[in-house]
Amino acid sequence: MVHNGIEYGDMQLIAEAYDLLKRALHLEANELSQVFENWNKGVLSSYLIEITAQIFKVRDTLTGKPLVEMILDEAAQKGTGKWTSQDAFDIGVPIPTINAAVEARLLSAIRAERVAAAPILSGPTFRLDKKRDWMIEAIGKALYASKICSYAQGMAMLRVASQSYDYGLNLSEIARIWRGGCIIRAQFLNDVRQVFQEQPDLPNLMLAPFFRQALFDAQDAWRKVIRTAVAIGIPLPAMSASLAYYDAYRSERLPANLTQAQRDYFGAHTYQRIDQPGIFHTEWQSK
Amino acid sequence: MVHNGIEYGDMQLIAEAYDLLKRALHLEANELSQVFENWNKGVLSSYLIEITAQIFKVRDTLTGKPLVEMILDEAAQKGTGKWTSQDAFDIGVPIPTINAAVEARLLSAIRAERVAAAPILSGPTFRLDKKRDWMIEAIGKALYASKICSYAQGMAMLRVASQSYDYGLNLSEIARIWRGGCIIRAQFLNDVRQVFQEQPDLPNLMLAPFFRQALFDAQDAWRKVIRTAVAIGIPLPAMSASLAYYDAYRSERLPANLTQAQRDYFGAHTYQRIDQPGIFHTEWQSK
Repeated sequence: MVHNGIEYGDMQLIAEAYDLLKRALHLEANELSQVFENWNKGVLSSYLIEITAQIFKVRDTLTGKPLVEMILDEAAQKGTGKWTSQDAFDIGVPIPTINAAVEARLLSAIRAERVAAAPILSGPTFRLDKKRDWMIEAIGKALYASKICSYAQGMAMLRVASQSYDYGLNLSEIARIWRGGCIIRAQFLNDVRQVFQEQPDLPNLMLAPFFRQALFDAQDAWRKVIRTAVAIGIPLPAMSASLAYYDAYRSERLPANLTQAQRDYFGAHTYQRIDQPGIFHTEWQSK
Repeated sequence: MVHNGIEYGDMQLIAEAYDLLKRALHLEANELSQVFENWNKGVLSSYLIEITAQIFKVRDTLTGKPLVEMILDEAAQKGTGKWTSQDAFDIGVPIPTINAAVEARLLSAIRAERVAAAPILSGPTFRLDKKRDWMIEAIGKALYASKICSYAQGMAMLRVASQSYDYGLNLSEIARIWRGGCIIRAQFLNDVRQVFQEQPDLPNLMLAPFFRQALFDAQDAWRKVIRTAVAIGIPLPAMSASLAYYDAYRSERLPANLTQAQRDYFGAHTYQRIDQPGIFHTEWQSK
């Protein structure tokens, strides 16, 4: 199940990269195929990237256009991504990238609403300067960094599920099995496998020196890609969710103290303090 | 249940505004209280904004510091937000802002991991210039626009749930009841009520002229706030999810055509075409 959730994440991240390359940089199918072929030679090398490069090569026999452009943009699902999302909420593990991927399929499916909304809801006036080569490389880095965060969420979910359900899972072995043959098979999983072989109890994949460095190297490009998409109005729900996950996970202090204060204010739900143990309640109104 | 999901969204959006005001603009508690008091006089006027202004005024009797700063940043939950998220996946309605709010509570709860990760995972080097007044106003606009999208999701969920479960819900009447007395009570709900009174079958709140104009007026500031947060490394999961929802909903064409091509490639799941009805399958490998 978690495999399929990760697969949803991978596919949505690739779709967002494609959307940017096409809508922002106006790449044609043959150029898109070339970009994915290049990516398949580096850290992104994987079955999904490989078949994506091939998909852009296929011409529609009816129109002569790239076949992918003739396909309806309503993604279906068999429910395994949804199942992952729902179970993650049950065991209390945040998997925002995977959830964003499931939500993106749901948003794609209400196509009639989107088509009706497109001329009504206004977008930004900002347009992109022509900086294609730099931007293509940056999109590849954003895809890689977002993918690391997505796998970090999936592996964290497996770790907690293993505890919750007493499964005794070996994360390194799982990565090895996935590496062998499945839709998410990739060079990447060798790195995941090695990390958990060396540190079976690692709380989060992002903390491994190899991936930490990879995130460090990619983050300037990653942030620039998301900022650009926000400016020109192209949705990157999964890439944005990955970045927010990264930035939240490395936040020693999040604003949840305010949330707790509000909950104590309106519902006397109590709170904890940072400087001493115990459960506290305050009559906020009368102060 | 949907009320509580929307409440989670409101609280998380307010928390993100607070995080930016505090971490990016370094506002003190008395300044924060003033900002929320000002916001409470405009379109954001609501019970939650009002109590937030009051919370920042309360001093800790032990340390003399603002009490909210002494509260542990681990948000608890009673499960109603989670329930909304899980049910939305079941009935196939995308509610990304509400889901991001639930995920944010889960991320806050793994505080020990965050504290350990903070010195290890690097952030961006970019720092914010001092443009406080402009930025405070922009954060208010980002909060308002994000809130519109969150309610649009919640009301869309009620509309679909009403059909799925044959409830016969009256959305205008629901807004009126919420307006009367509950945690999300707000001036805002009068506007929601009026919209559904005039157009009971409106597919999405964002399409109503009043909210369409509000989103149009806010969007430059909204995008700038998110771009700034991405640049300086402060997570805005719910505000980002709202913007991605807006940009996806107004996308006549999303990249789900590639997702469908991939699914047909690796699993023969078939696809539909944009130019004719029917179900199609292609042998992608051999082309």
